Amino acid sequence: MTKVVVVGGVAGGMSAASKAKREDPSLDITVYEKSGYISYGACGMPYVISGQIPKLEKLLARTPEKMAERGVTARVNCEVTEVDHARRRVTVRDLASGKTFGDAYDVLVLATGARPVRPKLPGVDLGGVYTLRQMEDAATLQEAVARGAKRAVIVGGSYVGLEMAEAFSEAGLEVAVVERLDRLLASFGPVPSKLALEELEARGVEVSLNTEVLAFEGEEHVRHVLTSRGALEADLVLVSVGVRPNNELAKALGLTLGPAGAVVTDAQLRTGLEDVYAVGDVTAVHHLVTGSLAWVPLGDTANRQGRVAGEVIAGKEARFRGVVGTAITKVFDRTFATTGLTPEAASAAGFKAKSTTTESRDRAGYYPGRHPIHVTLVWEEGTERLLGAQIAGYGDAPKRIDVVAALLFGRASLRDLADLDLAYAPPFGGVWDPLLVAANVALE
Amino acid sequence: MTKVVVVGGVAGGMSAASKAKREDPSLDITVYEKSGYISYGACGMPYVISGQIPKLEKLLARTPEKMAERGVTARVNCEVTEVDHARRRVTVRDLASGKTFGDAYDVLVLATGARPVRPKLPGVDLGGVYTLRQMEDAATLQEAVARGAKRAVIVGGSYVGLEMAEAFSEAGLEVAVVERLDRLLASFGPVPSKLALEELEARGVEVSLNTEVLAFEGEEHVRHVLTSRGALEADLVLVSVGVRPNNELAKALGLTLGPAGAVVTDAQLRTGLEDVYAVGDVTAVHHLVTGSLAWVPLGDTANRQGRVAGEVIAGKEARFRGVVGTAITKVFDRTFATTGLTPEAASAAGFKAKSTTTESRDRAGYYPGRHPIHVTLVWEEGTERLLGAQIAGYGDAPKRIDVVAALLFGRASLRDLADLDLAYAPPFGGVWDPLLVAANVALE
Repeated sequence: MTKVVVVGGVAGGMSAASKAKREDPSLDITVYEKSGYISYGACGMPYVISGQIPKLEKLLARTPEKMAERGVTARVNCEVTEVDHARRRVTVRDLASGKTFGDAYDVLVLATGARPVRPKLPGVDLGGVYTLRQMEDAATLQEAVARGAKRAVIVGGSYVGLEMAEAFSEAGLEVAVVERLDRLLASFGPVPSKLALEELEARGVEVSLNTEVLAFEGEEHVRHVLTSRGALEADLVLVSVGVRPNNELAKALGLTLGPAGAVVTDAQLRTGLEDVYAVGDVTAVHHLVTGSLAWVPLGDTANRQGRVAGEVIAGKEARFRGVVGTAITKVFDRTFATTGLTPEAASAAGFKAKSTTTESRDRAGYYPGRHPIHVTLVWEEGTERLLGAQIAGYGDAPKRIDVVAALLFGRASLRDLADLDLAYAPPFGGVWDPLLVAANVALE
Repeated sequence: MTKVVVVGGVAGGMSAASKAKREDPSLDITVYEKSGYISYGACGMPYVISGQIPKLEKLLARTPEKMAERGVTARVNCEVTEVDHARRRVTVRDLASGKTFGDAYDVLVLATGARPVRPKLPGVDLGGVYTLRQMEDAATLQEAVARGAKRAVIVGGSYVGLEMAEAFSEAGLEVAVVERLDRLLASFGPVPSKLALEELEARGVEVSLNTEVLAFEGEEHVRHVLTSRGALEADLVLVSVGVRPNNELAKALGLTLGPAGAVVTDAQLRTGLEDVYAVGDVTAVHHLVTGSLAWVPLGDTANRQGRVAGEVIAGKEARFRGVVGTAITKVFDRTFATTGLTPEAASAAGFKAKSTTTESRDRAGYYPGRHPIHVTLVWEEGTERLLGAQIAGYGDAPKRIDVVAALLFGRASLRDLADLDLAYAPPFGGVWDPLLVAANVALE
């Protein structure tokens, strides 16, 4: 009987374990998860903290008990501290008891994920300075809000920061966002950056761009955030300045690391070391637009990788083809989406890139409840190959980014986009869909 | 100076005229439109009749005055009754004055559209028995509702019939729908058929399936609809049993006619007769899934064809690649969408077709306001080539049909769909998008 040990039991690791067991019930699978929870919807945390989702436990997709019913052993609060691959053994520390034990494996899956960057600033270890990644973090923030925190400062204006700005605001806190760059949502391109700023300010969120955080001040508990533009009052700080792969075990195993120190795998999620796979946020992925390795840690990607790894481990043919960099985020009533490359990223990747932004409506011009929708298209000059798109709008309308994501998989052109036969009825868009409007403008 | 005459000034004809003039301002373009309006959003009519859109005139995208400013002459209430192509002349009847006049052309565009079928049943010419196609029809129905009609019977359960069932119901009428087949929305496949029936019945609309209409009864004004299952009271009847191309001029010109008598064109919208183009509902289109000609009259297709014809007439290179048969419709709170072939249509087209339907959610499982979404995928056995999809859900969620529409253009497979990198955040779908769930189930 083949013994599989999976290190990390959230998205990628648990998907790999579940899929492998379903495909080959003879496998003996144990998952070790360092935190107290497996298989949770981390992307839902802001909506628990805002109060929209009543209980944190709602985010749990599976529990160790449920996994046991399916024949997979999942142990929480268990950190794998060492791997002896020559002897195919892991050392595990039970964080509850403090005891250490060993386990054997034939196949190892590294799904160790990523962790938030905690900048080495004065006062960063004060009470009230948080990061958000695991269920425990969300519970801590929930408690801080419940204890009556009045004013939150969010360090970092990427999508997690902005989702949390909305969450704290919905929970009744005053919110300030501090961003080092000259724009919010930098990875979504210039139009979302501008409109997200408008939306936050309209909702009373104080935004400081081009602002460096210098220190956190207070006695035991944070009271002020010192920035390059002065001090901001805070009784709660969320530091959201990016994540880094948990690559310590990978390093110790001597695995090949790529961008940001993420593990390089082949399309079967093999690491190059026999019988060692890696999935999820700890891995680099093949970016189908640039053709290069990239680090784009996202839960849906982790799930898809885990599924493929599970199939491969069970002896099936499967392949993870890579990503095109699709993402979507809600900031109050606004929705921002991106796929492929922004104009800036396309130039940085060496493309002779052109782009255009068109504004249209997400319903027929005469249909009630319509909103503006901005579509940015990015393409390669000359070949007119599509390189990316960004959409800013309201509600579900920007989810049509997926049409461009589908086209990027097939290296389609602007012309291909313009020629699509998309669904039309007045409640869902204009007779020229916003994507077709954008493609036609780009072609002109 | 080249003189262009366009016969028909709604979607296809007006798009051709506008685009040709923009691309080559030296063109002399006259559009003759038989009805009293040009360039109207016919798909918006149900929402005017329901009262959601306050005025019928809101549906007008352009007026003859606006077109004149752009250098295009558009004459309404002018029916082209004859074409003498040897002499390049049309005969036009001014329906207001009853006078007839002639006009010359170098290039002729047939955009004569389609008209509703009016079955030859006893009493079909009674007052109160209507069809809906043109602005005048919508105005008549608006008046009938305003005069206090209490009970509407709709003959035909395709999407127009159901959109009108909603419209009349929203306007406060009692509504009954009579359908000859054993299901509603037949062109959307079995799941939408079933769910549309549920929705209508939940909204108090009386639906009679497998029911033949035999006659309309009343003195001057209709009072009853006699059916194979008894009589239905009515003080307003909408007959919505399909449309036929207005192909009389095309026939007189000896043009090649295809399915349903629609005009066959090449990818440049040429009819085969020199300098004669055809666009819009009067034409057959290349169906990219079956590879055959099909008649799929839709306003957005007409616009895209018109644009291509306009470019070609102006001497540009352009090509209309065809359709995959994408459509979407709202029935009260439900939304139904289709692209490509339904399971039934795929078999009828000679494919060895398989299909599966999966139910998932349009938001993350823990996110408030989520609704069920049903995705049917249709593929070819063996090759796993995607042949079509149908989606039934709520709000904008089924608009993701466009992702499959994009894939059908590129002859993609189930595997391609499963491998897509789609946008995920809890307010917009599960971590496995409903399309990915469906593709994964289909592959298993």
